[in-house]
Formats: sequence, structure tokens, C-alpha cells
Amino acid sequence: MPVERGLKIATIGGGSSYTPEIIEGFIKRYAELPVKDLYLVDIEAGKWKLEIVGQLARRMVKEAGVDINIHLTLDRREAIKDADFVTTQFRVGLLEARIRDEKIPLRYNCIGQKTTGAGGMAKALRTIPVILDIAKDMAELAPDAWLINFTNPSGIITEAVSKYTDIKVLGLCNVPIVMEKMTAEILETAADKLRMDFVGLNHLVWGRAAYLNGENKINEVITKLASGNFRGVKNIPDYEWGTDLLNSVGMLPCPYHRYYYLTDLMLKEEIKAARNEGTRGEVVKKLEASLFELYKNEDLKVKPKELEERGGQYYSDAACDLISAIYNDKGTIHYVNVKNNGTVNCLPNDSVIERTSYVGKNGATPLNSDPLPSQIKGLLQVVNEYETLTIEAGVHGDYNAAFQALTIHPLVESSIVKDLLADIISENIDYLPQFKVNN
Amino acid sequence: MPVERGLKIATIGGGSSYTPEIIEGFIKRYAELPVKDLYLVDIEAGKWKLEIVGQLARRMVKEAGVDINIHLTLDRREAIKDADFVTTQFRVGLLEARIRDEKIPLRYNCIGQKTTGAGGMAKALRTIPVILDIAKDMAELAPDAWLINFTNPSGIITEAVSKYTDIKVLGLCNVPIVMEKMTAEILETAADKLRMDFVGLNHLVWGRAAYLNGENKINEVITKLASGNFRGVKNIPDYEWGTDLLNSVGMLPCPYHRYYYLTDLMLKEEIKAARNEGTRGEVVKKLEASLFELYKNEDLKVKPKELEERGGQYYSDAACDLISAIYNDKGTIHYVNVKNNGTVNCLPNDSVIERTSYVGKNGATPLNSDPLPSQIKGLLQVVNEYETLTIEAGVHGDYNAAFQALTIHPLVESSIVKDLLADIISENIDYLPQFKVNN
Amino acid sequence: MPVERGLKIATIGGGSSYTPEIIEGFIKRYAELPVKDLYLVDIEAGKWKLEIVGQLARRMVKEAGVDINIHLTLDRREAIKDADFVTTQFRVGLLEARIRDEKIPLRYNCIGQKTTGAGGMAKALRTIPVILDIAKDMAELAPDAWLINFTNPSGIITEAVSKYTDIKVLGLCNVPIVMEKMTAEILETAADKLRMDFVGLNHLVWGRAAYLNGENKINEVITKLASGNFRGVKNIPDYEWGTDLLNSVGMLPCPYHRYYYLTDLMLKEEIKAARNEGTRGEVVKKLEASLFELYKNEDLKVKPKELEERGGQYYSDAACDLISAIYNDKGTIHYVNVKNNGTVNCLPNDSVIERTSYVGKNGATPLNSDPLPSQIKGLLQVVNEYETLTIEAGVHGDYNAAFQALTIHPLVESSIVKDLLADIISENIDYLPQFKVNN
Amino acid sequence: MPVERGLKIATIGGGSSYTPEIIEGFIKRYAELPVKDLYLVDIEAGKWKLEIVGQLARRMVKEAGVDINIHLTLDRREAIKDADFVTTQFRVGLLEARIRDEKIPLRYNCIGQKTTGAGGMAKALRTIPVILDIAKDMAELAPDAWLINFTNPSGIITEAVSKYTDIKVLGLCNVPIVMEKMTAEILETAADKLRMDFVGLNHLVWGRAAYLNGENKINEVITKLASGNFRGVKNIPDYEWGTDLLNSVGMLPCPYHRYYYLTDLMLKEEIKAARNEGTRGEVVKKLEASLFELYKNEDLKVKPKELEERGGQYYSDAACDLISAIYNDKGTIHYVNVKNNGTVNCLPNDSVIERTSYVGKNGATPLNSDPLPSQIKGLLQVVNEYETLTIEAGVHGDYNAAFQALTIHPLVESSIVKDLLADIISENIDYLPQFKVNN
Ligand SMILES: [Mn+2]
Ligand SMILES: [Mn+2]
Ligand SMILES: [Mn+2]
Ligand SMILES: [Mn+2]
Repeated sequence: MPVERGLKIATIGGGSSYTPEIIEGFIKRYAELPVKDLYLVDIEAGKWKLEIVGQLARRMVKEAGVDINIHLTLDRREAIKDADFVTTQFRVGLLEARIRDEKIPLRYNCIGQKTTGAGGMAKALRTIPVILDIAKDMAELAPDAWLINFTNPSGIITEAVSKYTDIKVLGLCNVPIVMEKMTAEILETAADKLRMDFVGLNHLVWGRAAYLNGENKINEVITKLASGNFRGVKNIPDYEWGTDLLNSVGMLPCPYHRYYYLTDLMLKEEIKAARNEGTRGEVVKKLEASLFELYKNEDLKVKPKELEERGGQYYSDAACDLISAIYNDKGTIHYVNVKNNGTVNCLPNDSVIERTSYVGKNGATPLNSDPLPSQIKGLLQVVNEYETLTIEAGVHGDYNAAFQALTIHPLVESSIVKDLLADIISENIDYLPQFKVNN
Repeated sequence: MPVERGLKIATIGGGSSYTPEIIEGFIKRYAELPVKDLYLVDIEAGKWKLEIVGQLARRMVKEAGVDINIHLTLDRREAIKDADFVTTQFRVGLLEARIRDEKIPLRYNCIGQKTTGAGGMAKALRTIPVILDIAKDMAELAPDAWLINFTNPSGIITEAVSKYTDIKVLGLCNVPIVMEKMTAEILETAADKLRMDFVGLNHLVWGRAAYLNGENKINEVITKLASGNFRGVKNIPDYEWGTDLLNSVGMLPCPYHRYYYLTDLMLKEEIKAARNEGTRGEVVKKLEASLFELYKNEDLKVKPKELEERGGQYYSDAACDLISAIYNDKGTIHYVNVKNNGTVNCLPNDSVIERTSYVGKNGATPLNSDPLPSQIKGLLQVVNEYETLTIEAGVHGDYNAAFQALTIHPLVESSIVKDLLADIISENIDYLPQFKVNN
Repeated sequence: MPVERGLKIATIGGGSSYTPEIIEGFIKRYAELPVKDLYLVDIEAGKWKLEIVGQLARRMVKEAGVDINIHLTLDRREAIKDADFVTTQFRVGLLEARIRDEKIPLRYNCIGQKTTGAGGMAKALRTIPVILDIAKDMAELAPDAWLINFTNPSGIITEAVSKYTDIKVLGLCNVPIVMEKMTAEILETAADKLRMDFVGLNHLVWGRAAYLNGENKINEVITKLASGNFRGVKNIPDYEWGTDLLNSVGMLPCPYHRYYYLTDLMLKEEIKAARNEGTRGEVVKKLEASLFELYKNEDLKVKPKELEERGGQYYSDAACDLISAIYNDKGTIHYVNVKNNGTVNCLPNDSVIERTSYVGKNGATPLNSDPLPSQIKGLLQVVNEYETLTIEAGVHGDYNAAFQALTIHPLVESSIVKDLLADIISENIDYLPQFKVNN
Repeated sequence: MPVERGLKIATIGGGSSYTPEIIEGFIKRYAELPVKDLYLVDIEAGKWKLEIVGQLARRMVKEAGVDINIHLTLDRREAIKDADFVTTQFRVGLLEARIRDEKIPLRYNCIGQKTTGAGGMAKALRTIPVILDIAKDMAELAPDAWLINFTNPSGIITEAVSKYTDIKVLGLCNVPIVMEKMTAEILETAADKLRMDFVGLNHLVWGRAAYLNGENKINEVITKLASGNFRGVKNIPDYEWGTDLLNSVGMLPCPYHRYYYLTDLMLKEEIKAARNEGTRGEVVKKLEASLFELYKNEDLKVKPKELEERGGQYYSDAACDLISAIYNDKGTIHYVNVKNNGTVNCLPNDSVIERTSYVGKNGATPLNSDPLPSQIKGLLQVVNEYETLTIEAGVHGDYNAAFQALTIHPLVESSIVKDLLADIISENIDYLPQFKVNN
């Protein structure tokens, strides 16, 4: 890493409303992570957002008195060239596509969610061609750079890069860190006193252990959670798990497990929302509009409180801490999406898992996982095969793989697959070049 | 095997309406499989059926002119003592229990079926204590005997015996042989010219290859099946799979796959049937009543045609052929439920799988299976873990295991699990001693 | 397989002194295996042998009154074109090379043997480029043909073809069939009454079970063997195993295990032989010379008794039975070298193992193997990795792989590796094009 | 861990000449690791040494001004009761036994070494009954304590405890830390700037990567090592590896690899030493005598320089750092012997491996290891099976397991096994109660 010339970071999808989060993250860590050049990249359609959020970013660094050059560009290759880290937070097809991902499945009484189930598959199919393109640019222009992927479905996207390119890649999600903070609250301790054993796939991760002062407190966490008032991430309504479910799982489910464990309740909630305030995507769309209004205010020089409503808390912390752990060769524990390579024996070596990992300048090494108990093993395995099929479909435009991906997904009733998939492909066809070619 | 004293077979659940099938099977094979003593065993509640069917059996062997002694008894231990083969075709709780297995899930808009999903789990929970008892008797009274298990869910029951006893056991089902016959029809050839590669779990088995004269014709089978008129087993309504589904699976699904691939259609059909002619169990109950009326006729000396309506075609062929292959050390291929032991690498060694196996006097050795493709691997894995949990629940009365078994089952929507399981346990409690003790 | 035009077989290395064996095999099985055209192929240097043995072959078929056309050719491609089976029994570098394989290791007080250890590696390095060439011809000229490989080291050569080509290949060795015959003798029964469970690698295979009438008699075999007069294959001096060794292995070692279990005795024997009658290769060379003298006799019209001295008994039976089982879709058990694919869980999927397999027109499917006990597992694993490295060395001319292959081989003391390997490469360099290029 | 009452450590084999090392270690770390009570335990035969070294220990802590109570006792149970850590550095049969372990194999021209090969097996057989006894005491008297095992063969002993007891155990060896220090020297950096990727078994461990500032420098290490003057641990003569060996391994061998990679050279050295200055055990015996003379000196109040000659450098650092990492929940990397559990996929789950691990109060979690390359995989697997067999022999007195353990060990020529094993058992019979019972 040619540090002499200063640390260069390229953020693809830099026009995102989240960008002030990551700017704040870099500002807070400037002493240990002295970013010299931050390239915010977006596409033509996002140019106006890039301009607004980019100006805010500039005001923020100026206000903070740190020497970070904010570059705004539509030229991805310029941004990637010689970067040390490339972070991705882009959304192919913008919020409109997300809203489709939510609404198409609902037509079939099927969970419509941006990362889980049919909606997540649609998003993956749109995103895979773009991320492979980015990886290709990186191979050419910044072969030593790390790709830190936030783009959802984070595990699948990271796995596609891991399987089909030689780029150094890690996937990131705020779910584990959110779960850790909640665990800390439940145990009435500080998150940094905890060491969590997370294992699973992105958005299907379980907290298998919560070590506090060397003792695994997971049973206490479950008991307290079962009896009361745990609050999930902002994106997901806050249903109770139920004591029997929690006790029989024996570990901490992630918020997205509600789609698996409380399917009907979640579906009803989604249908109700769609009929009233709109899907989460539609709500976010309004929220984003008002955020960009806020961002335009030239007196705004810090991340506005309102951004917290947006979801994605701690994303910036997770990301900046990970980047700093790599940059500074810290040897600390992070919860990342990383190539399995036998860590979880019942999943293929080339799958990407979400796992407690040890991070230094050479990257993330997952801590080995003890063999999994049946109640999480089977679910993980079937969702993992769904992911494998989705990646095949996304990379090769393989209709059969897409068909089977939906068929075996636990949240998709099989008799709807043909029509559902037809809708997904036809309504996203502008973003699915791989399916244009093959079908 | 002390052949000198003549071949002894004990059939537990001998009062079943199926018994004439197996009697016919032994008669047809008498030359190669000279059964001397056939013990038909039943319990007090089944005594009247045992008497009727037992007398028919006696008339059948007399008519056929073969020297098989038919013993009718309620003393299971007498029947098992020194037996060469013990076959099981009993039903704990009789047809009433089966009808409950069908109806309880339907209350929750959930597939209600005697072997698949929640109903199958209930049946397994009732059956496991009894089969382990039988195995215990065998260990004491006939330690060298083979247990040939027909009792459903055949794979789970066989696995429980395999995991928790040292008895030699093989599980049997007519589904593979029915699929083979259909494949032969589709290819316009004879079944004995085919060699099928079956792999999976009982009632979740795929025909991965169909070798005719050395060539794998499975694609031709699928294409013809997709275009037309395949007929499933009698127990299951005859929906079309759909071309895309068949092509994307790339192998032959078993009839029970309809529950997984056409869930809603099957559910609607079940609901309709329950409201009209009754569940399959209720239909069978009437059918059985009329069968036993038929059996009473002293002029009836052969298996009546009407039995074919009952379902379970070829059961007798599958069973008698398997017993003969063992007895005669044949070295032929059979499709049986057998300990995995690495045959299917992505399933645990101690799981019982349904697999093309080589059979001789030393038992069945599964032919190794090539690694499975994603579309069947994930589904198999999650159902296998459901089975593992069900066995733990059945053996130890482990409520948490039962809860998670239903939670991860692809056919059970998770938010109903608590109530559904409460109904299953309370309404079957007379047959669930393991749950009486533990809860 | 275009049977209409008659069965065509190409035998590469047709000038071998073994050829009368295989001719006799085809003659004996003519009714079930009606070979129309048998192409005996050799190279210029073997032309004189091809002529002699080819004329004998013609006299043999004429005498037997079967209608097999014997073609003698140096044009390998003509022989392979449209063949149904290609069998390989060639020896790159002729007997001179074999003698080198025996003598070079002896310089270092290291076992010198044509298939096992350093000599076997040398032979593999010479043979791999040629077999891959043959496979390339087959892919072009006879893509549906089966390659039945006899060329030693049979397992390694078969694995090289399996890993680096798409040709249908099975490896064959007479060792299992010899062991089966001996087991039958020990049990005073006929070999066809036995069913053997062989597992391992070629020339490192164990008889794990010997089923006679359904009962595993392996302990009886071992006990009798330990107490007495078992005789090995002709190539290997006949040392006693010792009771403790046999009992602690608990299964039947193959004759080549003497190199592993009685290393020093074998080495001393080899050294003595080299000083006196010559190495086995040198003895064979003389034997072959006298065989070819015999073969020249125009009155000789059958396989001469003297050929039995040569070693390789039953090779012809093993080969012709296997070819007939494929051709006639027999569904019988054979002991072949076949892709592992999980059969033996503790070895990689892509390794070739020697295993009891079920054979029909679609090829050989290995019977699944129960997990291996420690005493054979570790030895198999290290030799398997030696084989893997040897194949890498043979295909890519990878010096490091060759160095480590010898280093980890249990029969090669590591400090001699550098010099030993230098000798092997330099003295075989005419047959090692892959090493000429790379080094 | 009841810290309120002060940290209690029990050291079994406390009369060892190494004890001043560990005392020094505790003194240096007193601030972070405030040991209150240190129990040095020995047996009657070691009482005189315990007295001498114990007095020195007391003088050392007094001189250092730290408040550690040194207890000297022959009552192991008193020492273990409520201990926080139990460390083991005992030697069953004293140095006399070690000398036998070295000399018996030499009779057969076989490597005689205290931990590797036949000598190591003998030591394991003697030690296993004692360590299981200690574990039993711990289960009763200090069930929450950690067993930190130094007793050799450290991996095998740790694995025996791990397989046959529920005690929390970690095995320790100074080899990895010695290799790390050397790597640091070679790279002209400080050891604490390096992060090593160690993988293997105790005394058969490879340095697969050496990360310096995020870059894997292992190739540079190997190149420099190949070209020059690396120095091994004191116990092992200092032969050169050779460039080709190092390059083809592609990673850093441990000093004990010389027995595998340079077998004959090591054997010759051992034979020469035995004839001259004596085996290493005999040398150590003299060294120890003079050390104890030194220790008696009441003016000696610190660890004497002469102890460094003894071998085992950094043992104390490895041990005290590990104990402190656990005690203080540090979350740091240590190189320990720990249950595999899938970390190294090609070894059984229940094997104990030596691996870079993440250590906190909850113990050591191995970092997952990427699949191993062939050159180390095969060797590891066969030695691992040797270890498995040795443990079975050690626990159950299983002669067959012992016989096969030696038979498959790469350093033991098989034809000597029977006599060698007879000598080992008969000459150690006083320490082999398990073999007295069974044979
Ligand atoms: Mn996420
Ligand atoms: Mn069935
Ligand atoms: Mn051979
Ligand atoms: Mn050590």
C-alpha cells in the first residue's frame, strides 16, 4: 500500500444519503486513519445527489478541521485508480428498483424485502454484473486495493466477487454490530466488553455466544430477550420472538430472522404498510427526499440527526473500524462477510459466510466455528444453496438457476415461482444484461 | 441364519389391510424364498382385523398350494423369537391418528399429510417409542434378524433404529419402484431394463439418472414428463409439475415433491377434500372397512383387485424382492433406506438416506453418489435436519427439538409452530410416553 | 456404441508379451463379447515384437475358430478411430526404463520397484505425457470409447486421465482378483462365491471384508494367513506378514504392502537379487526374450504355459470380464480404479481409488465405503498425496511437486531425495518432455 | 474464576529444573498477572529436587519483591483444589525413562527421540494414565480451572485429555515461539511485529505465513533460510534444510521436521552422540545435576544464565503470556494445541492441532486454516493417525493400536515394530498399568 502518497479511498455510490455517516466516521478516526483523498463516485442519474451530499461532505471536513480532499466524480476509473480501499454503497436501479423488489413478491402474497427472499434475489441479479465490472476495474487500476462491500445483499455480492475475481474483498453489514450493541444493553454492559460469536450468512446470522469477562452469557441474553423488550433494526417491524422459539434456537437470531421465524406476521405487516404509508422503500424514498433537502442547507456542517431515522445505524462505525483495522494492522475482532474455506464445515469452502474474524493488514481470517446444531444448520444450508444458485443466475444469466433459487428458498412458496420470476426479469430487464443475452 | 429349521418371518401390524399383498408376494416367490412360518402380529385393538386378514391369508396359501404356516398372535415376542426377518407395517394409534395428522395442520392452513411435514412428525413421535421397543425385543430374541421397516415415515423410523440400536435394519418404500415403473412406461421399455440412480431421503427422493442400455435417459424422461401425462401414486392428487420446474431440477422428482414444489395447490386440494369426501385418511378408513368386508368372504382365496385402490402398489414386490435378495445373497440393486456413511457427502454419516444400493446376504451397501447439485442439496439438507430433530424429539421427548423441527421444515410456516405443536402433543398424548415424562 | 459395425478394440502396447493372455481372454468370451476388430498398436521400437505376438494372436483366433480380425499397426490414430474400447498396456522406455526404475533407487538403499515408491514415480512421469496424448486422440477419434488402463502405476495414470481429460476411463490391476482367489483358497471355497470389499489405492489396497454366504470371513482369513502358507503374486518375494501385524491391521493387505510393512526385508531381497540373478526387470527381460522365441514357433496356436511365469495372472480375466460387464450392461461387481467422488470420505473427491464397484454399460459406480480405521487411513492419505504431487509433476513438469512427492513418500528416506530425483530426471530425460521444457 | 481469593496456580512436576523459568515469568508479569499462591507439586522421587528448586523460587520472588506464596507439596490434590490454572511439566519415569526412549529405538537403527517417533510414543504411553488421573482430580477439585499442558508429547497428551475428559485444556510448546523469533531475526524485525500462521501438529508444525505489516514474507524467509545460517532449538543438531527442500515445501518447517526431512543425518548424529557424549537425555541428565548444584547456592536469587543451555527457551514466555491472556481476557494471538473442530478440514474434528489461535478468558479459538497443500497434508494426516492410535493404546492398553501406531509412523521402518514394541513395553512396564491389565 503506497502510503507515502496518502490514503486514497473510492466510494462507489457516493451520492447516497448515507454518505454523511461515512464522512463522520472518517473524521472521527482521522488521527489513526488519515484519509487524504476521498472519491465519491456516482452515475449520471445520481449526479444531483452527489453534488448535494458532496458539498455537505466538504463542509463537514472543513468544519472538523481535517485535511481530507473530497473529490466528486462520475468517472469510476479515475476514482479507483491507485485507491487503497474501494467501498461500495451503490444501488443499481435506484430506489425505484427497491420498491419493485418489495412490491412484486407482494403480488403473490410473498415476502417482499430488499435483501431477503425474492426481492433480494432480484437485487442480486441487478447488482452482480456491476460489481464484477468494478472488480475488473480494480484488477486493472488498483490490484492491491481492498473492496469493502456494503451493497446488499452483501453476502451474495461479496461471494460473487470472491468466486469470480481475484480482488481482495470483504462484505460488511451493520446487523452484527447492532446485535452486539443490543446484547450489551440487555447485559447492562458496554459493547466493547463483549466478544460475540457470530456465525451464519449475511442477514441470516446467529449470535451463538456472547462472552462477557470470559463467560458465555447467551442464555441470559435469550432469557431476558424472551421476557421482554428487545428492539430490532429500524428497517424491520418489532415483533416478539416468543419464549419457546428463542429457547429452542438457543442463540440470538438476527432481526432478519423474523422473516423466517415469523413469516406470516411479517407478510401481513408488509401488506398493511404497502396499503398505507407505503413499503419501506417508498417510505425511504420520501425520507431521502427530505434528507437531501436538509443536506442542501449550507449551514449544515455536521451529520444531521435526521439521518438516524434512515436505518443503517453503525454502518459507518463498522466500515471505518474495519478499514482502520486493516490499515493499522490492528489484530482485532470484526464481524465480516468472508470466504468460508472450511470455517463452517457444513457449508462449501467457496461460500461467503458472516463470521467473527480476526483482522489485520493481511485481511480477515475467520475464527473457526464449532460444528453447528441442527436447528441452524439446515436453514443455513438451504439458504446457502439459494445464494449459490442466485450467483450462478446473476453471473451467467442462467434462468434454471434463478428458477431453482426461488424454488428452494424457504420464504417463497414454490407454485408462484414461474410467474414471480417472469415479473422480476421483465420489470428489471434494463438492469439484467446477462438475461438479455441468454434468453 | 438357521435355515435348517425353515425361514421364519414376523410381520408386526399383521392385521393391516395390506397383508394380502405381502402374502401374495411370498406365494409368488415361494420357490426361491421358502417361508416356513409367517407370524402376523397385532395388538388387542387390531385383533378383529388380524383374525379376518389372517384367515384370508390361510386361504391364499392353501389355494396356492404352498407350505407356509400362518400364525396369528398378539404376542410380539413369540413372533420375533428366532425370526429371520421382522417386517413392520404397524400404525400407532390406528387410522384415527392418521386422520388427526392430516387434520391438525389443516387448522393452520398447513399441509396435513401422513408422512410429510407436521403430520409426518406427529406420526414419527408416536412410532419411535414402539419401534425402539421392537428393536429391543429383537436384540434379545432374534439378534441376527433383519428388520425391514415399512412403517412411515419410513426414513425417520429407520434412522431412529439405526442411531439408537444395534439391530440390522433397512427401510423400504414403494415410491422408488413406482417411479421406476413410470420411467419405464415413459421410455416405453420394461422396468427391469432400467437402472435408476435414486438419491435423497424417503419421500424426498430424486431420480437422478435412468440408465437404459448404459445411457442416461433422464433428460428424455423429464422432457416427456413435462409435455404430458405422468401419473403419480394413488395417495397424491395428480398435478402437473410444469416444464420450467422439471427442466431446472434436471432430475425426476418423487410424487411427494408436489408438497414442496406445488405447496399451495396441494394445500387447496387437501382443504377441499377435507370439506368433501374427507381427508385421504378418512377415505382410506372407508376403503378399509369395505376391504375387510371383502376379506371376510370365505370364498375369497386370492388378493382381491380392490386392494389396488388402497395405494401402496408394489410394496409387496419391493419387500419380497429385498428379502429374497438378502436371503439368496443375490447381489442385485434395490432402492432402500440405509445409513448414509458418507454416500451423500453433504449429509451426516449417521443419517439414513434413500439410495440405490447393492444387496446381498450381508445387507445393503449404497452405491456412492456423486456430489449433489445445489437445487436438491439445500432442500435435502434442511429436511434432513428436520428429521434429525424429530428423532431427538421422538427418542428423548425433547420439546425444543420438536419445536425447531417444525420451525425449519419448509412446509410449516413458523409463526404457527407453537400452537400446532401444542395440538399435536395434547391430542396424541396417549401415544407419546416420552412427552408425558418430560413435560 | 455403434455395435452394428462390430465391436472394435484397440490395444496400445499390443506388442507386449502379455498379449496372448488378452487374446485368450477374448477367445474364451467370444460368445458374450464378440470382438470383431482387435487393433494391436505399438511403436517403431516394438515393431518386431508386435509382428511376432501378432502372428501368434492370429494363429490363436484361427485355432479357436472365432471371427476376430487382428490388425497390427504402428498408427495409433487408425487403431483408436471409432474404437469401443481402448486398452493400454504400453511401457514408455521399454524394459530398459523399468530396470532403471529398479536400479536408481537401490543406489540410495531405497526400494526400487516398478510401481511403488521412487521407481513408480519415475514410471508415472514418463507415462503421463503419453497417456494424455492417447486421451487427446480418443477425444477426437473415439469420444464415446472407454479407456481401460493397465499401464502402471495404474492408479496414478488413471487419475491423471481422470483429472486432465474428459475421457471415460477405468484403471485395472490384477492384484484384487489375485487376492480374491487366494482368499477363496484360504476359505476353501470358489472365488465366485466370495464378495470382497476392497478399498484403497492401486497397489495399496486392503481387503476389508470377504463375504461368504453373507458372512464377513475376513478374521478367519487373517487368522489362517497368519498361521501359514499364503502365496503372493509372482513379482514379489513371499515373506510372511507376521501374526501381530495381520491382527493389528485387521484386514487383508495386498502383496505390495510388503514394501510398506516389511520394508527392510524387501530392500535386502532386492539388493541381493540385483547382485545375483538381476532385478525383477532384468529377469523379466530374459523371460521375455525366451517368450518371444517361443511365440515365433508357428506351431504354437494357444497361449503357452510359460507365460504364467511372467506375472500378471488373471490380468486378462479382470480386463475381459470388465469389458464384457460394460458391453453387456451386466450389473456385476468388479474391482477397479475409479474416481473417488466421496466414496472414501477421507480422500479428495478427485482422487482415483481402487474399490469394489458396480459395473454396467454406464461404467463403474464404486460401492460406498464405511469410514476407514486409523491404521489404513493415515497410510492411504499420505500415499494419496504422493500420487497427487506425482501427477502434478507429471503433467506440468513441476520439479517442486516431484521433490515433495518423494519427500513425503513413506518408502523414500528424505535426505536422498535431491540426488535421487536428479538421477531419475537426467537418466529418463528422453522420456520427460515436460521436464525439458520447464527446467 | 474466584479472583477475590487471589490467583492460585498449581504446577505439576514443580521440581523440574525448568521451574526457575516459570518463576521468572510470573515475576515479570506480576503487575498484570498477580499470582497469589503457586503450588509446586512433585512426587516422592522428586522431593529433593522440589526442595532445592522450591527454595530458589522463594528467594527469587523475595528478591523481586512480589507477593507470591510458593508452596512445596507432594499432595497433588491439595495443590489442585480451587486452582485457577494447573500447569503440567512432569516426566513420568524421570530422565531415566527419557534415556530409554532415546536408546531403545537406536538398537533398531531407528530415530530415538523424546517426542517424535517411537520414543515419543513410549513417553505418551507412560504419561496418558497420569494425565487422565490429574484431569480426574481437576474435575473433582477445580472443575473451572484451565489445564495448561507442557508435558511432552504435548499434542498427544492434550488430545488424550480433550478426548477423554471434560477438562478445559490447552497444550503448549515453545517451538512456534522459537520459530517466530527466528523469523523475526531473519526479517530483521521484532517478533511482536510479526503475525505467524502456524498450522500442524505439535512438533510437526509449519509456519505457513509470516505477516509483517500485512505482507506475507514467508517466501523471503525461506529464501534467506535456504541461503544461510538459521539456528534451531537447542535439543536438535543444526543441519541445513537444503534449498530444494525449502522451496518445494514453500513454508517454514519446524526444527523437529529434521527428523522427517533429514532422517538419516539425524539418525547418524544420534548414533554418534550415543557413542560419545551420550544421548541428549544423558547430556541433559548431567546438565540437570549441575543445574541443581547451582540452584542450591543460597546466594542465587535469580534464574541463572546456565538454564538457557537446557533447551526450552521461551517456554516460560509462552506459558505466562497464555495464562495472562486468559486471565485478562486479552483477545490476543497465541500458538497453542487446541481441538481441531474443523479448523484443518483434512484432519478429524476431535484431533488436537497446533494452530494460531485467538485467546481470551473463554479460552483459545483457532483461526480457521485454508485447505492445506499436498506436501504437508499427507504427512500431517499419517502422523495424526499415528497419534490417534497412540492415544487409543495409551488409554486402553490396546496392543494392536500401539503396533499399528508404530507401523504407520513415517520414522519407524515396519519390520522392526514387533521387537521394538516388545522392548518399549517390557522396559517401561512399571509405568504402563494399562498394559499390565490387558496383556
Ligand atoms: Mn445488511
Ligand atoms: Mn413410503
Ligand atoms: Mn497392478
Ligand atoms: Mn515441545
